Amino acid sequence: MTEQHSEAKRVAILGANGRMGAEAVKAVEAAPDMELVAALGRGDSLDQVTAAGAQYLVDLTVPESTEANVRFAVENDIHAVVGTTGWDAGRLAALEALLAGHPETGVLIAPNFAVGSVLASAFAAKASKYFESVEIIELHHPDKVDAPSGTAVRTAQLIAAERGAAGVPASPDATTSELDGARGCDVDGVRVHSVRLRGLVAHQEVLLGSAGEQLTLRHDSFDRASFMPGVLLGVRNVAAHPGLTVGLDGYLDLGF
Amino acid sequence: MTEQHSEAKRVAILGANGRMGAEAVKAVEAAPDMELVAALGRGDSLDQVTAAGAQYLVDLTVPESTEANVRFAVENDIHAVVGTTGWDAGRLAALEALLAGHPETGVLIAPNFAVGSVLASAFAAKASKYFESVEIIELHHPDKVDAPSGTAVRTAQLIAAERGAAGVPASPDATTSELDGARGCDVDGVRVHSVRLRGLVAHQEVLLGSAGEQLTLRHDSFDRASFMPGVLLGVRNVAAHPGLTVGLDGYLDLGF
Amino acid sequence: MTEQHSEAKRVAILGANGRMGAEAVKAVEAAPDMELVAALGRGDSLDQVTAAGAQYLVDLTVPESTEANVRFAVENDIHAVVGTTGWDAGRLAALEALLAGHPETGVLIAPNFAVGSVLASAFAAKASKYFESVEIIELHHPDKVDAPSGTAVRTAQLIAAERGAAGVPASPDATTSELDGARGCDVDGVRVHSVRLRGLVAHQEVLLGSAGEQLTLRHDSFDRASFMPGVLLGVRNVAAHPGLTVGLDGYLDLGF
Amino acid sequence: MTEQHSEAKRVAILGANGRMGAEAVKAVEAAPDMELVAALGRGDSLDQVTAAGAQYLVDLTVPESTEANVRFAVENDIHAVVGTTGWDAGRLAALEALLAGHPETGVLIAPNFAVGSVLASAFAAKASKYFESVEIIELHHPDKVDAPSGTAVRTAQLIAAERGAAGVPASPDATTSELDGARGCDVDGVRVHSVRLRGLVAHQEVLLGSAGEQLTLRHDSFDRASFMPGVLLGVRNVAAHPGLTVGLDGYLDLGF
Repeated sequence: MTEQHSEAKRVAILGANGRMGAEAVKAVEAAPDMELVAALGRGDSLDQVTAAGAQYLVDLTVPESTEANVRFAVENDIHAVVGTTGWDAGRLAALEALLAGHPETGVLIAPNFAVGSVLASAFAAKASKYFESVEIIELHHPDKVDAPSGTAVRTAQLIAAERGAAGVPASPDATTSELDGARGCDVDGVRVHSVRLRGLVAHQEVLLGSAGEQLTLRHDSFDRASFMPGVLLGVRNVAAHPGLTVGLDGYLDLGF
Repeated sequence: MTEQHSEAKRVAILGANGRMGAEAVKAVEAAPDMELVAALGRGDSLDQVTAAGAQYLVDLTVPESTEANVRFAVENDIHAVVGTTGWDAGRLAALEALLAGHPETGVLIAPNFAVGSVLASAFAAKASKYFESVEIIELHHPDKVDAPSGTAVRTAQLIAAERGAAGVPASPDATTSELDGARGCDVDGVRVHSVRLRGLVAHQEVLLGSAGEQLTLRHDSFDRASFMPGVLLGVRNVAAHPGLTVGLDGYLDLGF
Repeated sequence: MTEQHSEAKRVAILGANGRMGAEAVKAVEAAPDMELVAALGRGDSLDQVTAAGAQYLVDLTVPESTEANVRFAVENDIHAVVGTTGWDAGRLAALEALLAGHPETGVLIAPNFAVGSVLASAFAAKASKYFESVEIIELHHPDKVDAPSGTAVRTAQLIAAERGAAGVPASPDATTSELDGARGCDVDGVRVHSVRLRGLVAHQEVLLGSAGEQLTLRHDSFDRASFMPGVLLGVRNVAAHPGLTVGLDGYLDLGF
Repeated sequence: MTEQHSEAKRVAILGANGRMGAEAVKAVEAAPDMELVAALGRGDSLDQVTAAGAQYLVDLTVPESTEANVRFAVENDIHAVVGTTGWDAGRLAALEALLAGHPETGVLIAPNFAVGSVLASAFAAKASKYFESVEIIELHHPDKVDAPSGTAVRTAQLIAAERGAAGVPASPDATTSELDGARGCDVDGVRVHSVRLRGLVAHQEVLLGSAGEQLTLRHDSFDRASFMPGVLLGVRNVAAHPGLTVGLDGYLDLGF
C-alpha cells in the first residue's frame, strides 16, 4: 500500500471547485495509479502545489489565470495538463520559449478532452479526401449561445485542410433557390448545420458521401463525465511527451 | 381468369413514358386486382381512356396538362389519382365545383405518394405539441436545386399549425452569436436544415426534444419504387372517397 | 396567491424517497397548478394522505404495496396515478370491481411515463401494417439484467396485433445460415435486438421497410426527468377519465 | 489524344458480364487515365489479355477460376486487382511463392472494394481500445441468406484483435435473463446483431460507448456503384505495391 502510494503519480488540480474541476477531483481519486495531493480553488496559493510535492498539475481554471498557472508548473518542472481556453498564438509561443529551458517537462493543452470526439474529428478529416461530399451537423441543448460549436468549426477546418492538400474539389451543390439559411453556414467551404433541442447535451455528425455510399461519424456527449478518461489519459502520457502538445490526438495511437 | 379480369379495376395511366409513369405501368401490371387498359404519352388523345373503358385514371403528367386531364376524367365519371404538381387554390376550387355535379366520383391529389413519408409527417405534427423543441433536417442528392424541400416545408407548416392550436410556445433558442445560416432557415417558426450529399436520394428527420428525452422520426426514400404502393393504395380507395381529397393521409388509417 | 393555492390540485406522493419519487416531488412542487400536500416514504401511514386533504395520489412504490395503496385511494375517492409494476390480470380485475362503486374516481396505471416512448410505440404499431418488414432495436446501459426490455416486448406485441388484424404477412427473411443469435429474438413474430453499451440510458428504434423506403421511429431517454411530464399529464387528466385506464396513451390525443 | 492513350493504363476485365464486372467496364471506360483493352466473359481465352497488351487485370469472376486467372497475370508480369472470394491460406501462400519470382508485379486481393466500408472498419478497430463497450449492428435486404455478414465478422475480428493487444477487458454485460437471441451472436467476444429489412441494401453500424459518451461509425452501401471508386483506386496503386496486398486498406492513407 505504502509502496503503491510512493509510486503513484502525484497530481494537483487547479479550479477544483468548478464543474469540470470537481469531476476531475473524483476521477483522480478513483484512479488506482494516481494520488490527489492538492486541490486548489480561486485565491489559493500556488505554493501549495510545490509544497505537496505534485509531479502533475491539471489546470481547469479560467482564461485569465491559466497562463500564470502553467508558467509556474514549468518553472518547477511539473508536467501540466490544461483544459482551460484562451491560449492564443502569442501565449503558445511564450510557453514554448519557456519549455526550451526545461527539456524534460511536458505540457498538454487540449481544447477537448472527450476521447470519442477527438477520434471522430481525426477520422472525419482522414476520410474526407476519399468522398465527393462532406457536411457537418452539430446538435446541442438550446441554452448554448454560439452557433456553430467550436468543435464543429475545428472539425470543418481539419477537413478543409485535408481535402485541400489532396486536391479534392468542393462538395457539389446545385442549389439555386434557397430559403435564407437552409443550407447552413460555410466554414472553409464545408457546410455546417446547428440544431438546438431541449434534452440534448453535445452531439456531432460528419456525413461523407460518394456515388452509392455514405459514411457517418457521430459522437454523443451525454455527460461531463465523458471528459475524465481524456484528462487521465493526459496525465498518464504527458511525461513521455516533453515540450508542448496541443490537442489530445497527439497522445492517441492514431498513426496519423 | 376471365372472371377475375372482369372484376379487376380498369386503370389508365397518363404520362406513361415519364419516370414516375413508367414505374406506375409496371406496378399496375403487377397488381393482381388491377388491369392496365391504357397507357398514354405526350400527344395521345384522351379518347383512348374512355374507349378502353377505364374506371380509374392515374395522372402523372405535367402541371400544364393535369387540370384538363382530371376535368376529362370527372366529366366521364372516371375516378382520378393525381401525382402532378401545380394545383393551386383556384384550380382546386374549380375542380370541387365540377365534382359537385358528379357526386359518385372521387379525385385524390397527392403531392407525395411515399406512404412512409406521409406517415412520418403526420406523426411529427401529432407529436410536436408534447415536446418543448422541434427541428427538421432534410437530406437530398446534390443535384437538387431548391432548399429546403417541399416536403420539409409542408411538414414544418403542419407542425406549426398543430403547436399553434395547442398553444405551445416557440422552441427555445439562446443563440446570440451565429455564423450566418448555421441555425438553418425558419418556416413558420420551425428551423429547417438542408443537407446535400452525393449518394443520397431523399431523406428527412424530424427531431423532437424535451428535458431528458428525444423522439426522432426519420424517413428514407432510396428509390422511385417507394412511391408505387401509395399509387396503388390511391387507386384502391379513391372510389370509396367521392369528392376531392388532397393528400394521401386522407386514405390512411391514422385516426386523426 | 391564496386563491391560486386553493384551486391548485392537491397531490400526495407515495414512495417519495425512491429515485422516481424524489423526481416526482420536485416536479409537483415546480408545477404552477399543483400543490404537494404529502410525501410519504416506506412505513409512513396512509392516513397522512387523507389528513392532508389530497385529491390526487401518485404511487411510485413497490409491487408489494401498490395494490393496497390504490385501494385506499379509491375507497377515499382520491384519483390515483400509478407507476409501480406488478399489476397482473387478477389485481386489475379486483380494482375494476372496486371502481364500479366509485364512478367518479379515476385511476391511471402506466407502465411507462415517457411521453415520447409511448408515442413512438403507438406510431410504430399504426405504421407497421403499411410496411413489408419491421424489426426493433433497443439499446440500454450494460447494468440492465433483462433482454429484451419490457418496452420492446410491448411494442412488438402491439405491432404483431396490428399487422395480424390487417392480414399483413410475416416480415420476409431468407436467412438459412445463422451464427446463433445473430437475427435477434422473436416476439410474436417480430425480431428484437438488444444492445448493451456503457454511456447509454434507454433507447429504442423501430425500423419499418418496404421496397425503396424506410421509416425509423427512435426514442431516447437520457434521464429520469423524462418521465415527469408524463406523471404531471396523468395528474392533470385522471379526474376527467373516471374508471381504470391502463397506459398513458389513453390520455394522449392520438385519435386512435 | 494519341499520346494520352499511349500513357493511359491498359486494363483488362475478367467476369465482364457479371453484375460487378459490368459496373467495372463502365467505370474503367469513364476513367480519364485508363483504357479498357479487353473485357472477357465465361469461356473466353486468357490469351486475349496478353494479345491486347494489358498492363492491369481486374478479376471479378468466380472462386473456381480466380486462382488460375491471377497466376496467368503474374506469369505475364501483369498487375492484378482481385475482387473474387475464395482465397484461402493455401492459395495465398502459393501466390506469394509465385510473386517471389516476379518482384516488380503487384497483386491486390480485396474482399471489399467500398472505400467507406473499409475506412469504417479500420476506424472502428483503432477506436475500440479507447472505449469500455463495443457492439456491431449490420442491416441488409431480406434476401440475404447468411447472418451475420462477412464484413461484420471481419470488423468484429479486427476489433477483438486490437482490444486484445491493448489488454482491454470484455464489454460489460449484466444480462441474466435473456429471450433467446436477444443479445445477438458472439464473434470473438464482440456482440453482432443482424437486421433484415425490405428496402435496405448493405449497412453497418459500430457502436462504441464509455461513461457519458458514444461514438458511432456507420456505413451505408446504397448501390453497387459504391464499389467502383475502390476498384479504380486499386488499379491506380497496384504497380506501386509490388508483391501481395490483402485488403484495400493497404492502399489507403490511414497511417496505421
